[in-house]
Amino acid sequence: MYRTHTCGELRLEHKGSNVTLAGWVQRIRNLGGMTFVDLRDRYGITQLVFDENSSSELKDKVSELGREFVVQVIGQVRERSSKNAKIPTGDIEIEVEKINILNSSAIPPFTIEDDTDGGDEIRMKYRYLDLRRKVVLENLKLRARIGHETRNYLNEKEFIETETPVLIKSTPEGARDFIVPSRMNPGEFYALPQSPQLFKQLLMVAGFDRYYQIVKCFRDEDLRADRQPEFTQIDCEMSFVEQEDILNMFEGLTRHLFKVIKGIEIDELPRLPYSEAMEKYGSDKPDIRFGMEFHDLSSKMKGKGFKVFDEAEYIGGICAEGCASYTRKQLDELTEFVKRPQVGAQGLVYIKYNEDGSTKSSVDKFYGEDDLKLVLNDFNAKPGDLVLILCGKRTKTQTALCELRLEMGTRLGLRDKNVYKPLWVVDFPLLEWDEETNRFYAMHHPFTSPKPEDISLLDTDPGKVRANAYDLVINGVEIGGGSVRIFNSELQSKMFDILGFTKEQAELQFGFLTNAFKYGAPPHAGIAFGFDRLTSMFAGLDSIRDTIAFPKNNAGRDVMNDSPAPVSLDQLEELSLKLDVKEK
Amino acid sequence: MYRTHTCGELRLEHKGSNVTLAGWVQRIRNLGGMTFVDLRDRYGITQLVFDENSSSELKDKVSELGREFVVQVIGQVRERSSKNAKIPTGDIEIEVEKINILNSSAIPPFTIEDDTDGGDEIRMKYRYLDLRRKVVLENLKLRARIGHETRNYLNEKEFIETETPVLIKSTPEGARDFIVPSRMNPGEFYALPQSPQLFKQLLMVAGFDRYYQIVKCFRDEDLRADRQPEFTQIDCEMSFVEQEDILNMFEGLTRHLFKVIKGIEIDELPRLPYSEAMEKYGSDKPDIRFGMEFHDLSSKMKGKGFKVFDEAEYIGGICAEGCASYTRKQLDELTEFVKRPQVGAQGLVYIKYNEDGSTKSSVDKFYGEDDLKLVLNDFNAKPGDLVLILCGKRTKTQTALCELRLEMGTRLGLRDKNVYKPLWVVDFPLLEWDEETNRFYAMHHPFTSPKPEDISLLDTDPGKVRANAYDLVINGVEIGGGSVRIFNSELQSKMFDILGFTKEQAELQFGFLTNAFKYGAPPHAGIAFGFDRLTSMFAGLDSIRDTIAFPKNNAGRDVMNDSPAPVSLDQLEELSLKLDVKEK
Repeated sequence: MYRTHTCGELRLEHKGSNVTLAGWVQRIRNLGGMTFVDLRDRYGITQLVFDENSSSELKDKVSELGREFVVQVIGQVRERSSKNAKIPTGDIEIEVEKINILNSSAIPPFTIEDDTDGGDEIRMKYRYLDLRRKVVLENLKLRARIGHETRNYLNEKEFIETETPVLIKSTPEGARDFIVPSRMNPGEFYALPQSPQLFKQLLMVAGFDRYYQIVKCFRDEDLRADRQPEFTQIDCEMSFVEQEDILNMFEGLTRHLFKVIKGIEIDELPRLPYSEAMEKYGSDKPDIRFGMEFHDLSSKMKGKGFKVFDEAEYIGGICAEGCASYTRKQLDELTEFVKRPQVGAQGLVYIKYNEDGSTKSSVDKFYGEDDLKLVLNDFNAKPGDLVLILCGKRTKTQTALCELRLEMGTRLGLRDKNVYKPLWVVDFPLLEWDEETNRFYAMHHPFTSPKPEDISLLDTDPGKVRANAYDLVINGVEIGGGSVRIFNSELQSKMFDILGFTKEQAELQFGFLTNAFKYGAPPHAGIAFGFDRLTSMFAGLDSIRDTIAFPKNNAGRDVMNDSPAPVSLDQLEELSLKLDVKEK
Repeated sequence: MYRTHTCGELRLEHKGSNVTLAGWVQRIRNLGGMTFVDLRDRYGITQLVFDENSSSELKDKVSELGREFVVQVIGQVRERSSKNAKIPTGDIEIEVEKINILNSSAIPPFTIEDDTDGGDEIRMKYRYLDLRRKVVLENLKLRARIGHETRNYLNEKEFIETETPVLIKSTPEGARDFIVPSRMNPGEFYALPQSPQLFKQLLMVAGFDRYYQIVKCFRDEDLRADRQPEFTQIDCEMSFVEQEDILNMFEGLTRHLFKVIKGIEIDELPRLPYSEAMEKYGSDKPDIRFGMEFHDLSSKMKGKGFKVFDEAEYIGGICAEGCASYTRKQLDELTEFVKRPQVGAQGLVYIKYNEDGSTKSSVDKFYGEDDLKLVLNDFNAKPGDLVLILCGKRTKTQTALCELRLEMGTRLGLRDKNVYKPLWVVDFPLLEWDEETNRFYAMHHPFTSPKPEDISLLDTDPGKVRANAYDLVINGVEIGGGSVRIFNSELQSKMFDILGFTKEQAELQFGFLTNAFKYGAPPHAGIAFGFDRLTSMFAGLDSIRDTIAFPKNNAGRDVMNDSPAPVSLDQLEELSLKLDVKEK
């Protein structure tokens, strides 16, 4: 060992001890004769002192030091004359007797401080230096802890952690696969899993009863800020259970994590049907840290001669408490906000409920005070409140109103990062119609069970069928989702039918699963959590990138090691491949 | 929940309780009027009884049942009249009142019993049925437990479990990479990691101090029985440590696992230098459950006119206790054994030390009784012992003698699967010369540190340089290996030099690592364990295949889902690739 103690360990009780420390030079302060060096490792920072009395050899060595040099020091612990209450080792310092420079360092391209001067790009290129910053390291430590506590909970519940293959079969359904050429099987390819879905269902057929895995998954999609080509899932499946059992088990996991990681006791999770989530919040992942629920105002605002409303499929509004005092400028800002292409509304109607009890609206021309009061009453509005109204096509308008609601929540400080309001969204539709390809797609995936009471609708009105599917949503972010699975091969075949697979396609792609179902498949259900997103939620981050040790950028590149990269022609020839890159 | 209890849970104390069970039909016995059904789940087997008094509806349902049907039963726990002491639930049975057939089953292609009638191939194709067998399931449960206990130990020692990327940069050094075409970067490829080596070293540069990960690794090699294209490693790295610290830390892990998993207290691990391992056992992974160490007999057996020995570079023997009574037939078998191409010796010389004190040898013509006694004394042989001797080129002969020693150990019952003798093999050579390519290769990998006292030899006699590298060997199997790393960029450059890299090649392939080393790399060292092999060792299996839920066959194929498989031309075009499969 290069050290007797870490840099975070020494206290006043060690006064007088001879110790050896090793770490990085965080800071050097030369105060006329005395030199102070902050020595840093993962565990903390300890102050080193070089006195006027230090030998000239020692002084020479100290003068060589620079930021991020790696050193080993031998010395005695002594009490500081001026203590630093901000760090746990702040009562002591090391009177250094000997110093070994273990490694020098070039000047780092940015400062290794919580508030660094480095921009995103340079920090990604020198990720190994960025990870030295306490704020980044803490995210990775948090990630490890969440993983460990997840395992503790699931092991205790008799789940068997089981690894499923990474080199699997490509299935065209769903997102785009990454594929891996097989040298030993020329012209053939493995795929990297988008999730271990089929394998975990096979484990249920195999009688594993309770399975989990914290596992890398892969999607070759065009990337966004919070998407990575490889990401990690907490993947779980249970047999002989119904939806209620899954919700209870993983509500338990959620509460366990909040308790041990954040010290927060979470209330019982509300369960919100999808249809209600859309009606009230315009979103299947509502942020319920605040109310401001939608009201459908069609019955109150149609037929008053305002053509825009009269012709609208949907008129919806929210009530922002205490915002009647908003100025024209503020209201214009909100109008600009809803008209942004990402939100997509045509305009914004407001009704102010003034403090004096009077009303003021952008559509005064069409609605009298009584009309407006009816609307305000619908919201139980009080003087001082502001009602904001959008209209248009139902789904599009609800989505826009959702954005407006979140914006108002943010403006009013109702979205505190330290407040957590998880909920279950349940009863998702089984199918989504796609206008472009003129077919139904599975909203969750093709193995999701319809609700038993809706099965008869499969033949008459498939779009109306609800699924035994559920999402865990926290603060407006989808953290996990799953479903009860189809475990009957006839029903599974029917689903493939509805999804437009021919018998041959279904057999080719999922034959091994439907075949497995012929040998006694148990009822089963499962769920998967986004581990990166769960961690970023606990860490209070906006992006998942800083919860990942070595993330990729938006072009899927690792800028640190400059990959992906070309490979040799020999390598391609061995794989029976040729490049076919088109000039741009 | 489809059940109130599992099939492994009920005892006499539950007598009279009304319970609901769910599981698979293991066996049906019809004993005139009474029908007994063994119901199985992961947790055990419970006997169901259908009486003469059962309703005709119930009787009809039971008559429909077949092996592996999935059923739910409701009934009352009662005491068995004839108890079964072999199973924990053997005191009770369930008097069934109601049965729901949850799923039927086709007749399984092999029996779901510990001793199945299914061959390897069919069991791989129906792996989900094979996994239902208790003996296979137990291996997977053991694997999960070893993983969990490994994490417990390392978490307790403040290691941070950190995920490293799966989509990385291809490095031609070492085994062949699997590569993954990048759609977003046409003509470029990711590689799948053969190990997280570079990333874990970067985590040390990042100050993580202690890292581990249980991680999938990939090698595109021609496969053998105990090789898989994807395998799992327990991968670890520590900073500010020397070799001794790593050995102690992971000796601790080894002892912890043996204690909690097998209930075995392991003695302190012996440390055997590589050179001694080769001299004594002819192997860098010696099985030390038994002695039978090699003796170099050159000085005693040369110069007596036996040309074969006189011209041999090496003459080595082992002493098999109590084998002087071996018949001509047995000795011929041994001679056949050593002459097999896999062993490769030219012939076998024996010296019998007969019970009456006389000697008998296959080379009596050249060696008198006194000459032979000198050899026997060298082994401390007793009357009744048998000395077996091989000669030829040193390394080749030692390797053959190693095989003979293991064969004799097996024949003498000295290789008990329930006895575990782990050891460290240390001081490996840094480099291996390859005759074919006429260059040195790193024996461990290019980042392994030479022993400080041997560094001067790097310029004069690189082949003699020993490394700070170590292997954990248990019962003749290499379970883990690692090394102290180079942390100085000049020494690292020198290593690349010796390995025949040009500056440009080294920069292109490892530039991001040597660059990272410029910013204050700490001294660090690490180790990786083969998780599959460790599990198979604990399970007493000969192959790693049955420790893996869904293994691949020797052609790298998953015969269950028939992958790898062709992909569509569209998929290839998106990836800027064309097939170039040659006719055979």
